This record gives sequence, C-alpha cells and structure tokens, in this order.
Amino acid sequence: MEQNPPSTDSQSDRPTRVVAAMRVRYTECDPMNVAHHSVYTVWMEIARTELLREQGAVYRQCEERGIYFVVARLNIRYKKPAKYDDMIEVHVEGLPCAGVKVEHRYQIRRGDDLLATAETTLVCVNSDGRAMPVPSGLLP
Amino acid sequence: MEQNPPSTDSQSDRPTRVVAAMRVRYTECDPMNVAHHSVYTVWMEIARTELLREQGAVYRQCEERGIYFVVARLNIRYKKPAKYDDMIEVHVEGLPCAGVKVEHRYQIRRGDDLLATAETTLVCVNSDGRAMPVPSGLLP
Amino acid sequence: MEQNPPSTDSQSDRPTRVVAAMRVRYTECDPMNVAHHSVYTVWMEIARTELLREQGAVYRQCEERGIYFVVARLNIRYKKPAKYDDMIEVHVEGLPCAGVKVEHRYQIRRGDDLLATAETTLVCVNSDGRAMPVPSGLLP
Amino acid sequence: MEQNPPSTDSQSDRPTRVVAAMRVRYTECDPMNVAHHSVYTVWMEIARTELLREQGAVYRQCEERGIYFVVARLNIRYKKPAKYDDMIEVHVEGLPCAGVKVEHRYQIRRGDDLLATAETTLVCVNSDGRAMPVPSGLLP
Repeated sequence: MEQNPPSTDSQSDRPTRVVAAMRVRYTECDPMNVAHHSVYTVWMEIARTELLREQGAVYRQCEERGIYFVVARLNIRYKKPAKYDDMIEVHVEGLPCAGVKVEHRYQIRRGDDLLATAETTLVCVNSDGRAMPVPSGLLP
Repeated sequence: MEQNPPSTDSQSDRPTRVVAAMRVRYTECDPMNVAHHSVYTVWMEIARTELLREQGAVYRQCEERGIYFVVARLNIRYKKPAKYDDMIEVHVEGLPCAGVKVEHRYQIRRGDDLLATAETTLVCVNSDGRAMPVPSGLLP
Repeated sequence: MEQNPPSTDSQSDRPTRVVAAMRVRYTECDPMNVAHHSVYTVWMEIARTELLREQGAVYRQCEERGIYFVVARLNIRYKKPAKYDDMIEVHVEGLPCAGVKVEHRYQIRRGDDLLATAETTLVCVNSDGRAMPVPSGLLP
Repeated sequence: MEQNPPSTDSQSDRPTRVVAAMRVRYTECDPMNVAHHSVYTVWMEIARTELLREQGAVYRQCEERGIYFVVARLNIRYKKPAKYDDMIEVHVEGLPCAGVKVEHRYQIRRGDDLLATAETTLVCVNSDGRAMPVPSGLLP
C-alpha cells in the first residue's frame, strides 16, 4: 500500500486524506475484460482503512474494542474502465462529521485518468448494531 | 431463482419488474457476521439479468452479439443487515428510457424487512466500449 | 437451490449426498469468459451446506451453538470450463468419518459434462478454534 | 507488492521463486473472523503473476497475444488461519516443466507462521482453449 504525503487537518495535525495504490487483480475482472463494478467498493474500503491507519487508528483494533463502522449510503459514478494489471490509485478524503456518521469522498484514478468518483456515509455502531457517537479519537 | 408473477408494461406486454430470490452465501458475509456491502451490487446484477430474461432476452447472448451494458451510476442506501443463510428477495424495476441509457430501481427485502434501496444507470456500449442506442428489443 | 431426490444412509435414513443446482454469476467469470477457478470452492461450500440441511441441520445454527467446520484440505481437478449463465450442478457426498474430521467428494457437472472433481477434509472446531469431535447428530 | 531478493535458475539467470506480500482484506474474511479458504487461490494467482513478472513476462500481455494459462489441478492444506489486516507472504516456486504444463509450489506464511501449503498445475492454452506448448520464453 503506497501513500502520497498526506494532507493534514490543521487543528489536529492528523491527515484527512490519503492515496492508496493497488494493482487490479485478475479475479476482480469480468468477461468484458475490465474490473467488475462491485470491486470499486472493496478498493474504497481499503483506502478508508489506510486513512484511519494514517490517523493513528487500526480498524481491526476498533472491532476488537466493540466499535464498528457500517456503510449506510454509497454513491459511485463510473467514468472509465480499469483493466487487469492496471496500477490504480484510490484518493480518499474524510469529511468533518458530527454525531454517529462519517462521510468520505473518493476519486479512483489511473494516473491522469479519472476512473470513478464516489461518496460513502458510514455509521458508527456498537456490537449490538446500535448507532453510537464516533469516539473523538477516531474523528477524521 | 424464484420470481413473483411479473407486472407488465401495457404497451409491450413485457414485464417491467421481477423479484429474484436468493440465499445469502457464507463467503458473502464478513467478520460482522452480515453480508458485506459490496455484495448487494452482485445481487442487483443477478436481478437485472432475470428481468431481461423475463423480457425475452438473455444477457449472455447480448454479449455474444456485441451488445454490452456497463454500470455508469450506482446509489445504494443500506437500512438493515442481511445475515448468512437468510433468504432475500431483490425487487427490480426497469424504467422507461431513451437513447443509450437504462435505469433500474431496487428494493432488497427479507420478507417484510426492507434491507436496502438502490438505483443504477446502465449505458449500452458496443465491443469497442462506445455508447450505442439500446436495441429496441431490449428496452424495458 | 434445487435438489435431486437424495440417496440415504441405510442406518440413519439420512441422505449422504445431494445435488445443488445453481447458475454461474457474471461476477464469478473472468477475462477468459469462464468461471474463475476460485469460485468452485464457493459452490462446493454451498453444496455442503445443502447436504447438511437435508440431514436436518442448519450450519448457521451450528455456528450459533459454537460448532464450526474449517477446511483443512482441498483438492480440485478442473476438466472443462463453466461459462457465464450456465446452469451447473454440484454433486456432493459426505463420507463416513470418525473423530474430528469430515470428508466430502464432489462432482461439478453441467448436465452430461463433467467440469471438475474435488475432495475436501473439514475439521470440527469450537469457538476457540480447537478441534472437537463432530457431534453425532451432525455425522454424515 | 513487495518481493524478497529472488533466487535464480542457474541456467537462465531467471528467478524461479518470489515472495509476494499482501495485507488480508476485510472482504476476504468470513463470519469466523478469518480469511475464507477460497481466497488463498486468489493470493496464489497474484504470486504466480509476480513470479512471471520477475522472469520478464507480463501475463496481461500473454493474453493479448493469445497465450492463456488455465488451472488444471489445485491442492491446498490449511494449517493456521489468516486474520483480517494480517500481512502475509505468499512464497511461490515454479518447477521445471515440459510440454503444455507448468507446476508451482506455494507456502503461505505470516512471518514464522506457516498458514498453508499448496501446489497447482497450469496448462497453457490458445484462445480456442486448446493445449499448446508453453512458449520457451515463459518457462520457469
């Protein structure tokens, strides 16, 4: 996972965006010879995890402590296909949020080519699936 | 694949909606013990294919004839989780369209429980990936 | 999930084999325009689950009671490709076992075409991942 | 994709083994909170591709030239589970082969922990799916 020098939130000095680079897998591609549209959501999840890691938190440890994030809303606009073995970059930005929600914006790029743009809304839940405020240490 | 008696388009007597029932697979579920959010797009694709089949067309044959549909836009709102081994129903409705695009609306349900709602826009393309008018025989 | 009339174990009158029929999904296929070889393991898992269901047990309930089955060994020989939208049948047979292991044999077929043969060995474990004897009610 | 300094084949000075490192994805894990057994085949495919790349060939270009490799045989023995967010290493070795087949051996490791061992046999085929001799430039 490669990351560009992250930009930072001036208040907290924590990065609010990262770029996760990855190679398109053979099994992610379909008979049209391009990455299947469902895979973009997986790439976006990986980028969110890396953003959290840059911010000093590890999602695996969140779950071990009973803090989960579930996807409540997902919007993607696909512009150009990604092909097998392409190196792509997922740019993700965490948006200031309040309460139980976290929002992210994404650009999926192959160098200068913009392949897709997307937004997600996550909700923080406890192990019973009940919404809970995002712990302040995990705010973007 | 079970389907409810389809409703029909009065002009063409072709169904404009179907319900595709399926069982949530173990491998579709994640450590939260629920279906991963990326899988909903796969279920929606299966339902679109079954709608096309009810309308008298087979997507595999479309591709063999050089007619492809690519997803250009995807919106999903997740409301309740689907669990492993649940029987779920994907309700899909094809919307009247013009030109190169086809729109669909979805409800993913488990009986009375509404699990998610979604919309997609597909674009009809030829084997070079260029947009082309949807052949009239394939209009919803 | 369609099943042929199951053959039965004369001692217990429980079936020892079933046939699970399913349609090859678009997302299961790769740029060679055939089902990716990793997907066969998913189909085999579905067939095992259906065999267990025919035998009167539901794997989801096993896990809820702290009984898990993990795959310890997997052998597959691929003979002919499965294509998108093909209807395939996974024939699975549970073998008499003793102790902590369960063995299964598989044929993946498309009508008269034998697409693959396979065997797996599962180990019964508790929620700590420790091997435990297969509960007698779950023996094939 | 990180790779250890590859060992080389003395005759050809081409490496015969590489190590592909990767992080276990959330979507690759199942309700048991470990990587699903089907995912190991995906990791092995990635490692084979990286071995080919180290040897000077790019599998995507092979397919563009009408040279395909299909999996004919797959054996895996699972020893310890891989967990979400683990960094794992897939050690792959290409074995000397003759004719239409290529064999590989694998160890999937997490540092000192051996998670699984495996072997595959691939067959080289043309765009019609007919077996053909492995081009000498692609021999391990």
